[in-house]
Amino acid sequence: MSMNRVYNFSAGPSTLPLPVLEKAQKDFVCYGDAGMSVTEMSHRSKMFEDIIQKAQADLRTLMAIPDNYKVLFLQGGASMQFAQVPLNLLSAYKSGKADYINSGNFANLAIKEAQRYGDIKVVASSREDGYTHIPDWDEAEFRPDADYFYICQNNTIYGTRFTTLPNTGKVPLVADMSSCILSEPTDVSRYGLILAGAQKNVAPAGVTIVIVREDLIGHALDIAPTMLKYDTMAANDSMYNTPPCFGIYMAGLTFEWLLANGGLAQMKEYNQRKAAVLYDYLDQSRLFKNPVRKQDRSMMNVTFVTGNADLDKKFCKEAEAAGLMNIKGHRSVGGMRASIYNAMPIEGVVKLTEFMEKFEKENG
Amino acid sequence: MSMNRVYNFSAGPSTLPLPVLEKAQKDFVCYGDAGMSVTEMSHRSKMFEDIIQKAQADLRTLMAIPDNYKVLFLQGGASMQFAQVPLNLLSAYKSGKADYINSGNFANLAIKEAQRYGDIKVVASSREDGYTHIPDWDEAEFRPDADYFYICQNNTIYGTRFTTLPNTGKVPLVADMSSCILSEPTDVSRYGLILAGAQKNVAPAGVTIVIVREDLIGHALDIAPTMLKYDTMAANDSMYNTPPCFGIYMAGLTFEWLLANGGLAQMKEYNQRKAAVLYDYLDQSRLFKNPVRKQDRSMMNVTFVTGNADLDKKFCKEAEAAGLMNIKGHRSVGGMRASIYNAMPIEGVVKLTEFMEKFEKENG
Repeated sequence: MSMNRVYNFSAGPSTLPLPVLEKAQKDFVCYGDAGMSVTEMSHRSKMFEDIIQKAQADLRTLMAIPDNYKVLFLQGGASMQFAQVPLNLLSAYKSGKADYINSGNFANLAIKEAQRYGDIKVVASSREDGYTHIPDWDEAEFRPDADYFYICQNNTIYGTRFTTLPNTGKVPLVADMSSCILSEPTDVSRYGLILAGAQKNVAPAGVTIVIVREDLIGHALDIAPTMLKYDTMAANDSMYNTPPCFGIYMAGLTFEWLLANGGLAQMKEYNQRKAAVLYDYLDQSRLFKNPVRKQDRSMMNVTFVTGNADLDKKFCKEAEAAGLMNIKGHRSVGGMRASIYNAMPIEGVVKLTEFMEKFEKENG
Repeated sequence: MSMNRVYNFSAGPSTLPLPVLEKAQKDFVCYGDAGMSVTEMSHRSKMFEDIIQKAQADLRTLMAIPDNYKVLFLQGGASMQFAQVPLNLLSAYKSGKADYINSGNFANLAIKEAQRYGDIKVVASSREDGYTHIPDWDEAEFRPDADYFYICQNNTIYGTRFTTLPNTGKVPLVADMSSCILSEPTDVSRYGLILAGAQKNVAPAGVTIVIVREDLIGHALDIAPTMLKYDTMAANDSMYNTPPCFGIYMAGLTFEWLLANGGLAQMKEYNQRKAAVLYDYLDQSRLFKNPVRKQDRSMMNVTFVTGNADLDKKFCKEAEAAGLMNIKGHRSVGGMRASIYNAMPIEGVVKLTEFMEKFEKENG
């Protein structure tokens, strides 16, 4: 770790693997023998085509993406997908209906946006409980004729995640994986569509990954802008127009880094160890509490509170002085949140836990 | 110039100022004393707020943008704006009509997209002439009740540009300036809206600049996705969701570089000199011809042909071997094109011209 690097627990944009950053830095002005920066390359050049094709191939390898799924590199983040999903899928099976689980702020925003385009049913919600758990969906009434079924798989703000997936039968499952993609192996065949803003676990902000089953492409509503139709991008390998080239390049470097470090099985094991350090400490702490129902705990975003807003504030301030940055919880919920994505080394988590212990002794 | 840098005449993404690249490289892993990369910064952090606010302030200074205009940093490129402009402006004055000038491929795509949302009239076109000149619009019949009037101010593929602007009266003028923004001083008050993909004259691909008069904001069609409504972004200083942070940072570095080098008046003088080197040579060449009507010649994209496709191909190949990259014309028109945006040093243009002279002697 570079001498002056901090531990950055930001929820997104967030810490990236140091080897990825160092490689991008080294090649920043002149990429290989190209005599130019990746930021300057024509997206139609052989050099960039190699970059984007390798990025896609490596992502396919990492996630074992079946051949009948397209991988798209888009723009606009998950927020753009909140509209793009209904605009593309609400007519896939012509019912114009979709079912959603409301598990947090971003699921809620996705619901609101989808309601502008179709008949949307919230089949389960934990909103009344402050989203401190995944809604109990096992007794929810799904609609078997829905065009799709939507979940936000990991809820960044609250630190919750789906550990099992609803069995939606023939209804395609759509998942926002912005804050958990590549954190563990994923059975892509369980999903109709996976979406993820890259800025949490993959790359700088500005790239959105969409993995979509081919039969769901090509049925967009008439009102959908050409740029928002999945088939526009699928037919052009994400290059209908100029893509966010540098972000795709950085994503590719992250995929290479993951492959070189054992892939997603290894990553899961590492992420479990990291999360356990924090949760184990929290479970015995008398000062800090994790507000999340135990079986729904996120492996990526660990939330905790003292129950005293002033003390929370003091903690964040002192943590920052100790090089533990962006520990403050989301402005909508307060408290603290440590986002420990793939690129956060276990040393950072250990250092944070030690700091919490010290703080507890001094303030408990 | 770094020893192994080439001259990159790509139409976009395209060459960036070397001092900008070198500064971004130096700070890539650790920005200032932040202990993290700009690519890792929370967009809600003070550090990034300073970056985006300074970028906006510097752009306002450079272009002397009046206070009643908003500056937005968006995603999706000009192609996304082809939908976003009609989705936002077609109900500004409630007529649902807009007039367009068809001056090239991108104007044509903008027209096709707008036709999906309203009553679009092409008031002048040079399509029949292969877009080798700006359409003669002085006798065109504009509609005084149109919601807006649209032009593509510089036509990257053909090497043409508007040197005077249509007087559209009360009808807001909308201009795609992707390939000419910041190349010379602009009287922003002549426009209702200026849009520009950043990847030609500003920054890496993935940032779209929109400068829009405030009274045109807030009238989007009901079907417009929330993310595509200008008011969503205007009300949130381009941070309704995570913006393309690194691209905005790079754009800011380019704005600083322009300010430090005399601003747009100085840039115009330099760009005129650069373009003159090429056009003066072309006007006396017996091998190479510029196919564009003289008064419509672009200052940014200089197109030329030998009239012999094999010879064009040979030229491009030999130019590349001499370190003069991406000289090939757009696939739709063939021939050659030298894009000489702000960041292309005059030395590159001189070297290209010398190479053309040599090639002419050997092949003329």
